[in-house]
Amino acid sequence: MSFNTFGHLFRVTTWGESHGPALGATVDGCPPGIAVDESMLQHWLDRRKPGTSKYTTQRREPDQVRILSGVFEGQTTGTSIQLMIENTDQRSKDYSEIAEKFRPGHADITYWQKYGIRDYRGGGRSSARETAARVAAGGLARAALAEMVPDLRITGYMVQMGQHKIDRARFDWDQIDQNPFWVPDAEAAEVWATYLDGLRKSGNSVGAVVEVTASGVPAGLGAPIYGKLDTDLAAAAMSINAVKGVEIGEGMAAAELTGEDNADEIFPGNDGQPVYSSNHAGGILGGISTGQDVVLRFAVKPTSSILKTRQTITKSGAATEIITKGRHDPCVGIRAVPVGEAMVACVLLDHVLLHRGQIGENRGRIG
Amino acid sequence: MSFNTFGHLFRVTTWGESHGPALGATVDGCPPGIAVDESMLQHWLDRRKPGTSKYTTQRREPDQVRILSGVFEGQTTGTSIQLMIENTDQRSKDYSEIAEKFRPGHADITYWQKYGIRDYRGGGRSSARETAARVAAGGLARAALAEMVPDLRITGYMVQMGQHKIDRARFDWDQIDQNPFWVPDAEAAEVWATYLDGLRKSGNSVGAVVEVTASGVPAGLGAPIYGKLDTDLAAAAMSINAVKGVEIGEGMAAAELTGEDNADEIFPGNDGQPVYSSNHAGGILGGISTGQDVVLRFAVKPTSSILKTRQTITKSGAATEIITKGRHDPCVGIRAVPVGEAMVACVLLDHVLLHRGQIGENRGRIG
Amino acid sequence: MSFNTFGHLFRVTTWGESHGPALGATVDGCPPGIAVDESMLQHWLDRRKPGTSKYTTQRREPDQVRILSGVFEGQTTGTSIQLMIENTDQRSKDYSEIAEKFRPGHADITYWQKYGIRDYRGGGRSSARETAARVAAGGLARAALAEMVPDLRITGYMVQMGQHKIDRARFDWDQIDQNPFWVPDAEAAEVWATYLDGLRKSGNSVGAVVEVTASGVPAGLGAPIYGKLDTDLAAAAMSINAVKGVEIGEGMAAAELTGEDNADEIFPGNDGQPVYSSNHAGGILGGISTGQDVVLRFAVKPTSSILKTRQTITKSGAATEIITKGRHDPCVGIRAVPVGEAMVACVLLDHVLLHRGQIGENRGRIG
Amino acid sequence: MSFNTFGHLFRVTTWGESHGPALGATVDGCPPGIAVDESMLQHWLDRRKPGTSKYTTQRREPDQVRILSGVFEGQTTGTSIQLMIENTDQRSKDYSEIAEKFRPGHADITYWQKYGIRDYRGGGRSSARETAARVAAGGLARAALAEMVPDLRITGYMVQMGQHKIDRARFDWDQIDQNPFWVPDAEAAEVWATYLDGLRKSGNSVGAVVEVTASGVPAGLGAPIYGKLDTDLAAAAMSINAVKGVEIGEGMAAAELTGEDNADEIFPGNDGQPVYSSNHAGGILGGISTGQDVVLRFAVKPTSSILKTRQTITKSGAATEIITKGRHDPCVGIRAVPVGEAMVACVLLDHVLLHRGQIGENRGRIG
Repeated sequence: MSFNTFGHLFRVTTWGESHGPALGATVDGCPPGIAVDESMLQHWLDRRKPGTSKYTTQRREPDQVRILSGVFEGQTTGTSIQLMIENTDQRSKDYSEIAEKFRPGHADITYWQKYGIRDYRGGGRSSARETAARVAAGGLARAALAEMVPDLRITGYMVQMGQHKIDRARFDWDQIDQNPFWVPDAEAAEVWATYLDGLRKSGNSVGAVVEVTASGVPAGLGAPIYGKLDTDLAAAAMSINAVKGVEIGEGMAAAELTGEDNADEIFPGNDGQPVYSSNHAGGILGGISTGQDVVLRFAVKPTSSILKTRQTITKSGAATEIITKGRHDPCVGIRAVPVGEAMVACVLLDHVLLHRGQIGENRGRIG
Repeated sequence: MSFNTFGHLFRVTTWGESHGPALGATVDGCPPGIAVDESMLQHWLDRRKPGTSKYTTQRREPDQVRILSGVFEGQTTGTSIQLMIENTDQRSKDYSEIAEKFRPGHADITYWQKYGIRDYRGGGRSSARETAARVAAGGLARAALAEMVPDLRITGYMVQMGQHKIDRARFDWDQIDQNPFWVPDAEAAEVWATYLDGLRKSGNSVGAVVEVTASGVPAGLGAPIYGKLDTDLAAAAMSINAVKGVEIGEGMAAAELTGEDNADEIFPGNDGQPVYSSNHAGGILGGISTGQDVVLRFAVKPTSSILKTRQTITKSGAATEIITKGRHDPCVGIRAVPVGEAMVACVLLDHVLLHRGQIGENRGRIG
Repeated sequence: MSFNTFGHLFRVTTWGESHGPALGATVDGCPPGIAVDESMLQHWLDRRKPGTSKYTTQRREPDQVRILSGVFEGQTTGTSIQLMIENTDQRSKDYSEIAEKFRPGHADITYWQKYGIRDYRGGGRSSARETAARVAAGGLARAALAEMVPDLRITGYMVQMGQHKIDRARFDWDQIDQNPFWVPDAEAAEVWATYLDGLRKSGNSVGAVVEVTASGVPAGLGAPIYGKLDTDLAAAAMSINAVKGVEIGEGMAAAELTGEDNADEIFPGNDGQPVYSSNHAGGILGGISTGQDVVLRFAVKPTSSILKTRQTITKSGAATEIITKGRHDPCVGIRAVPVGEAMVACVLLDHVLLHRGQIGENRGRIG
Repeated sequence: MSFNTFGHLFRVTTWGESHGPALGATVDGCPPGIAVDESMLQHWLDRRKPGTSKYTTQRREPDQVRILSGVFEGQTTGTSIQLMIENTDQRSKDYSEIAEKFRPGHADITYWQKYGIRDYRGGGRSSARETAARVAAGGLARAALAEMVPDLRITGYMVQMGQHKIDRARFDWDQIDQNPFWVPDAEAAEVWATYLDGLRKSGNSVGAVVEVTASGVPAGLGAPIYGKLDTDLAAAAMSINAVKGVEIGEGMAAAELTGEDNADEIFPGNDGQPVYSSNHAGGILGGISTGQDVVLRFAVKPTSSILKTRQTITKSGAATEIITKGRHDPCVGIRAVPVGEAMVACVLLDHVLLHRGQIGENRGRIG
């Protein structure tokens, strides 16, 4: 992963600013012969699209993706694929103030310190709009995974908003699509709705924790030492805007466990393959998948663009204050759910290809 | 980062198994003219060395590092540097049982599932002994950073063992070297000593949280979108054996904050450079360093090699149980402290070089 | 270099097929603050444009480049730059026959054998149209080099067409732009015009040798062992469509020299820097630039799309014959000249950045 | 390929100087389960070993390779493999003069100009001794290829020494191992022996052309656009010390052919697979292997370390002259033969893995 590219064999390079003419993803290394069309990618983009509820930014971005290369007669050709999304709702006037001031908690100041120039319109390259390109690339990865690992399922959902956590006892996969928060707990959805409405009206924002579970991941994906599956998942998650923490399985809570409690015991399953008493490991041991569910969790900080007055400085170094008007997400964690799924899809496909490259289709059966 | 290599311009490739003849790191891209000798690297290795207290494994590994290439007359030449550590304490007999059984919570089973072959002696490639090579490479990175960014300081320490956290109000940098836990809280050191002694005697183990702070990091290091400084730090930390969670600044707790609380306000400093009211961001905004302290935290799970009986299966898929005799760390988090420091050093040097490559020495002054 | 990306720090990923909606280059790692606009890139594209004389294909492709990202208010921002060229002249009917047959000497058959699918319209991804994206990226590299290494000059020209070589005694830099062949020998230009006219009318094609000279290259660019400047130049040249041989300095003729003859003797120059008695080395020793002119030469094979009947097979494996109608270049070497220049520009900028990254601005003065 | 690493999935990083304690190769990405031991690697190293005839340097280097990691119980484990060769014949006194002077035609001056420091003993990192590490890595690649592509054969040989070329009409594969020049033409071997003896006695040296043929290469290896098989072969060959030109198939002579002559016509073979009337393409079309013999040729310049007086300068910039005493190769092309084979083996294995990664075992059958 370097600069604007991530992945080893399935490589995604994104480009574009929030208020330029377009943005997109250049995808390299996709297997050939994968059935894909624009509507399949659009399906995932629509989940991330702003303005779907009052809990996300009210910008109007249709986020229509076009496939400009690498797909012929409905199938990938194995060559580089260009996915382009044109920007249509560019109300630059909302952002004029931030040309001279730095929003606290935002990349404004660091882009300036690094490059000495920045596209300040809507955050430019640092805008979360970049994640639309990831979701398009993730849709492509899902299409390839659907053919190569048909049992694989990748599902993202929110498990925490502010201090409100879900109750795992009420976890219901079917609830995830039934509320604007992708939350698997119907009662939490109601509490969060009230809570976020209050925050939104007060011009404030709040953080969240997103969890992505991948089931049906074959054992053996990943590679020591610096190409571990969890290393790449951590990097992928941390690369998402506003993410400040990443966990696999028990995550930070692993610190509290003893070795006796943490060890997922192993038993022979009916099909001769191992089954486990628990999944503290989050499906990954030594950087390699076990065949259990891969469980990734990441924390998204609250949006820094808020209607609250904050102290800051100008480009000239003078003290000032700032309120960021505009149409922002009160909880960007919501729209981070499909982004997290997309990143997991890209990483998993990459590791499926890497494994096949080094090792082939079969290795290391137990029994 | 891929397979056994990490880094972009300053690249480290490690090799070797715990019970092979030697292990080491091949380091590429180091700047030339850096003064370095074996004793400078040995200094850091001695901090990680096993057997320094009763709280770490009683294996006797002197971990003497040799520089086999890339250093001439006391200076780096700019060409590839080989750092080799010969293995001397190879009591293979301790590990004979695990040739046929998989330790729960250990990479035994996944290496087998991936490769169909594994060096089972002492964990082979999955052993934490590999981290000695990282510490050697980190020593080299520190030597280069000392010349290039003299004010940079990298300090690791433990902030949690099991459920016992430090009291931040008692945080004292000078305490870190005064106890066997690298803990900046003298009272915690006493509590932990008693706690860990009990665990050790019962043949159990426990997890920990390690924090690494880098002060004096110049603003502007890192790069969007997939070469973010925090992306690389997260990957570096997650690549360390047994790590299950990674945090920058507020980390997972960022989920609980509002945008108003999370935004580190900015003020003009005496030298014309920005100062901040707080450091929720952990020194990184938009993937780029702000000039504040970079704060990385990671959770280490408890060692899976314990003297407790656990259920498992054999290579043939038969149910069995296992007790892992041998000389293991009751809390590997202790020895993960110098490893975490080393990884931070490598990542920071890499980003210093990347920044200089793309941008040169100066960009984007404020004021 | 891998799949569709080349370069280390200055990285170019190209995408697009000859008859898709568009093609382009995604450029990453460009230094910020470089003044660039579309007209500066268009200047170089116009040199490569088809249909400028009767000696190149009569397709009508305006090859208008658009900058979609990474440039703000006339300057590069340091983030990824998307250069897109829309395809406008897509007469697919010319290519219908090759959907079922493989042109001898063309990538038709190998794309099919590799991928099992290919975009057969106009060669798809294997078309030399892809080189338009390289020329656009090369224009960007030239803009950065113009600011970073103002004395650098990159000039490409033809030195051989078929069996007709230039006479080095008549070499005249000013002639290069005065004829449709970019040939620095006015007499050769006349001979070649007659020769190529005959070939063109008979529906045949011919190969060529292109030379690119870079003067003003600072000493010290390149890196042992696998990042040598000549390694990257060789790879860059060999990646151009139809190239079958690459030479640095004496090239293949170095085999015929003795050590006494080949050694470019060194003398102290007026400015204290070394001067050389000759340049057999082509400006590169041990993979690192000497400060002399860097001289790269490459051979381009004749176009395989010709109006001559050739024996071939169908996708079903049946014997057949083929004549490739359409509007093809009788000597693709002509249009390879600006492509070769572009590749040299990209490689040199990449190595300028790599050198600055590892070493900084100054090292190793003589005297 | 970057700095000291080459390869994509099968990656080789070499390290070590000619007069340091040791040198070697760190090999990553090798498939697991490949039977390999030190004697298998030694076989290839012995072919490159100095002092085997009066036509190579009389240094005594046993070049014994040790496998320090990544091989367990006679099989590769899939983890990183360290191949180390200790240096034993370090007569540094032969090289004392070159500490202050630069040998014309040698990397002495450019290493100094780049790094400001160099290990001048025996050329340090720029010494051809580094190629021993490549040959060891190539032995490993051959072992993997022997299991994965059993019909593959890689054979290197010299086709030109100075102005003396072989007569292709006398080409005899069985002759290659029968003379000290690896030349497939018995008459040429006699002429070359007399010629080189004269050069050697006069303290001079001469260049050569080496050809490597790989038969049994499956169709479909390689990848457009910058991961072409010939791109990687060209880079691999150009990375070898003293190489100044690289050719695939017709190479530079492709410039002289018409499209009609150059097009290798295709016919249906007995097994339903294509057969070709000729192999101008050298087994590669569009960067992808055709299934024909892959033919790589490269020119090696004469050794610059000769017993002839040449003009040069000192580190201080003063004019001086130099004679390089010591035990040098009159024609390094001889020992470049096994090196060329090794590089081809590494590139082919890398592309076998890359192809399997992206595409799997089977794609694109004809018929």
